[in-house]
Amino acid sequence: MASIFSRIASGEIPSYKVAEDDKYVAFLDINPLVEGHTLVIPRKEVDYLFDMEEQDLAGMILFAQKVAGNIRKAFPCRKVAVVVLGLEVPHAHIHLIPINSEADVNFHRPKLSLSREQFLRIAERISNPE
Amino acid sequence: MASIFSRIASGEIPSYKVAEDDKYVAFLDINPLVEGHTLVIPRKEVDYLFDMEEQDLAGMILFAQKVAGNIRKAFPCRKVAVVVLGLEVPHAHIHLIPINSEADVNFHRPKLSLSREQFLRIAERISNPE
Repeated sequence: MASIFSRIASGEIPSYKVAEDDKYVAFLDINPLVEGHTLVIPRKEVDYLFDMEEQDLAGMILFAQKVAGNIRKAFPCRKVAVVVLGLEVPHAHIHLIPINSEADVNFHRPKLSLSREQFLRIAERISNPE
Repeated sequence: MASIFSRIASGEIPSYKVAEDDKYVAFLDINPLVEGHTLVIPRKEVDYLFDMEEQDLAGMILFAQKVAGNIRKAFPCRKVAVVVLGLEVPHAHIHLIPINSEADVNFHRPKLSLSREQFLRIAERISNPE
């Protein structure tokens, strides 16, 4: 069965997409640590990031680089942090999190609760920065 | 002035290196969250990961992929996590952390205190897995 992220990539499950091409998709984390918290996935389903083929892995970090640039324009921050854990959904995904302090990237703190309208506005800002 | 990581890369400051080539260096984090916690840096000094040139960034994740493979052989784990925060040392670095649970990647918990002999043994295991 397709992973939840494959179903998001295909559009079967709705999401707030902020970028996509033929190999990768970026969409808002539905349980964000901060506004702008985004996930980047490969369309090809691979559980563990480092099991990806070299070309696909290199392409994914460059895709993430572009998305991170848009996140930072939309949500000015010190850095866009990168986190890959991969213990929950068996489909490799990079968290991109605009941060101003280490506390912003603490996965143990309560997640933001945003309305559909807030998610839509954030996705629009990242999709079309400036 | 050269960053502390440039001085580690050059050998001016001692470290427990586990891999290096002409562009990247991997060495043990001196304040590890778990045994095997490793940092990957580019020799070229760049503060923010996503300010790296595309070719250098792609090369860095592929170098990290190889190091992560060795870490996982030396320290069997569910995944090798990737974390890039970059708020302390202004020289891009990827944390590679062998994890079995999310708690293993909690930067707020006390770090391990290891002896020089323990660091040397860990570095040896990762440098020459199996």
